[in-house]
Amino acid sequence: MSIFLENTPVQVALDAWIAAVEKIMVSHNLTERVPSTSCIDRVTAEPVFAKISSPFYHCSAMDGYAVNFPDTFGASETSPVRLEIPGRAFYLNTGDPLPDGFNAVIKIEDVNEVEDHASGSGIRWVEIVSPAVPWQNVRIIGEDIVAGELIVPANHVVRPIDLAAVLAGGVESVLVKRRASVAVIPTGDEIVSPGVPLKTGDIIDTNSWMISGLLSECHAVSRQFAAVPDRKSLIEATLVDAAAHSDMVLVIAGSSLGTEDFTASVIRATGQVVVHGVNIKPGKPVILGIVGGTPVVGVPGYPVSAFLAFKLFVRPVLTRFFGTGVETAERLHVQLARQVSSPIGIEEFVRLKLGQVSGRTMATPVGRGAG
Amino acid sequence: MSIFLENTPVQVALDAWIAAVEKIMVSHNLTERVPSTSCIDRVTAEPVFAKISSPFYHCSAMDGYAVNFPDTFGASETSPVRLEIPGRAFYLNTGDPLPDGFNAVIKIEDVNEVEDHASGSGIRWVEIVSPAVPWQNVRIIGEDIVAGELIVPANHVVRPIDLAAVLAGGVESVLVKRRASVAVIPTGDEIVSPGVPLKTGDIIDTNSWMISGLLSECHAVSRQFAAVPDRKSLIEATLVDAAAHSDMVLVIAGSSLGTEDFTASVIRATGQVVVHGVNIKPGKPVILGIVGGTPVVGVPGYPVSAFLAFKLFVRPVLTRFFGTGVETAERLHVQLARQVSSPIGIEEFVRLKLGQVSGRTMATPVGRGAG
Repeated sequence: MSIFLENTPVQVALDAWIAAVEKIMVSHNLTERVPSTSCIDRVTAEPVFAKISSPFYHCSAMDGYAVNFPDTFGASETSPVRLEIPGRAFYLNTGDPLPDGFNAVIKIEDVNEVEDHASGSGIRWVEIVSPAVPWQNVRIIGEDIVAGELIVPANHVVRPIDLAAVLAGGVESVLVKRRASVAVIPTGDEIVSPGVPLKTGDIIDTNSWMISGLLSECHAVSRQFAAVPDRKSLIEATLVDAAAHSDMVLVIAGSSLGTEDFTASVIRATGQVVVHGVNIKPGKPVILGIVGGTPVVGVPGYPVSAFLAFKLFVRPVLTRFFGTGVETAERLHVQLARQVSSPIGIEEFVRLKLGQVSGRTMATPVGRGAG
Repeated sequence: MSIFLENTPVQVALDAWIAAVEKIMVSHNLTERVPSTSCIDRVTAEPVFAKISSPFYHCSAMDGYAVNFPDTFGASETSPVRLEIPGRAFYLNTGDPLPDGFNAVIKIEDVNEVEDHASGSGIRWVEIVSPAVPWQNVRIIGEDIVAGELIVPANHVVRPIDLAAVLAGGVESVLVKRRASVAVIPTGDEIVSPGVPLKTGDIIDTNSWMISGLLSECHAVSRQFAAVPDRKSLIEATLVDAAAHSDMVLVIAGSSLGTEDFTASVIRATGQVVVHGVNIKPGKPVILGIVGGTPVVGVPGYPVSAFLAFKLFVRPVLTRFFGTGVETAERLHVQLARQVSSPIGIEEFVRLKLGQVSGRTMATPVGRGAG
């Protein structure tokens, strides 16, 4: 489908453009596998599931003594229970694995450590003054993450906290969307690189630097070309070569007459024009086409128009096929589903699950585990 | 000033911390000069002013004929004025400089080009059917940017559109805040790198990867260390060396007993503890100190606590002294100060200036120039 109307509404142009790009992208490999440690800011191409639980062994949540809880039955201030160290009580630091046969931890503050100095035997005990309940002060296997559990869904931008969960889940590599390699080709006899001494008639190439910056915001990789003079054969040759080696090509028009028609006729000569003349304002017509199986956008030369053309027709392609999402911290006003009370004098940061209930956003506090 | 209370309120701890860091930062060089073309995402250390105007010559805003406007007085459909090409009318593409003695441009669509075929003289004219007004269809010098004008204020994160203006203003380098180089030192016998075969008791080092990701979000450069075993002499030596070669050091505690006291006593032995024991929840105490003139943060080992410690005590230092601002696109509800009408069938993107008027945000449409 080709649309040659002037004043094509943006949405119509965008739909035609995305449909045309979709057709060529089916034959492209749009994913790659990267080590988990390099997956921050990448967009997942498939869900990531935990390979191991975290913790992957029962471990102590406190500094204290591991015990077998039935050993502590009947313990009280008046008749404490004595358990021998290390046979029936075993000292653990926070995070230490629970030895076999032990199933509860009593905090160090809640026991008395006693040593048999009299007999010289060196035997040591802990004195326990209240019974332990099973698994108290124990982080059980999978408390944070259970093997097989979904850690990160597909199409998710991996944040630093996601990475921590991916690594804790024992996942060593992640399938992510590829980063697009995008050729940026300024054209026009009058276009000069920043820093070159200027003469009347010169126009500083600000557009390709701005567009490279916008590409980088979209996690795409920009390949910047030097300005190509206004000669059709040169622009054609540059475009065809760039299209063969890029995921997308952006041809930036000079601001002189004909340059934009140049771009259209060059694309028509070497490929296919999908949309010519979306008349956005401010702006000159944008040209959307395909050359050698690669999407090509003819970007207008005026900076504001170039910026808009990027936002309207380049970024959507990158987002859809290559993954560009930029996550930002958001502030939401929500209603708490239940009261939360914190110990006096402590500023508590509570994690919440959000959900829509009868049109209101309700926030339910979730567990305070370490994961 | 040192604060050794447990349960120090976050704001009190933060104020003491920032004050202590400020004292050492006065003797540091916190800025560097970079080429303008590499200044995207950097934070300006001083305002940037235009060196040249943009455009830096009068140029045509249209494809058409440059004229000297008095030559067109009295032109009408019934008595057109003929001006000889190139003596009194001069063809210009959009963007071409206006020759001396010319001061208006008449659009190509509004003239007739006439050639003297009869006499064979080859003389050519344009026929003009209405008088030109001075400077019509001319982009005058400085229309977008006037030499000496402020382009970007200090403490501003340079976006791609800012870069375009900086380059158009002929500015070749920009003084920006340095990127902090931050050492990330995990500690603990039980800490193993991701990918290492696991045995019971091991804890995968997720924290230093998460923190490196958070640093990168703040435009800081992370230097990740391998985990240092729980031996005071080793941790001391590593800390002192890292402090000598970094802008900031983050020591990540293992989760075992003593490790956090380890960090405090190591900092005390090699420098100064500013705050010990901000009791945020979830979390274990954070330790804030100075070693060898470098800020050091003892980060708790639990991932959620580590994340919070970063947001509360690491990021503010980076933001204040090194510049980390992350700009995000925002959506605002505003009231238009005057009606804006667009040609039928064109989607127009209008730039607005915002201001507070009696508590309401008013948006005033600004010029539709190309800058």
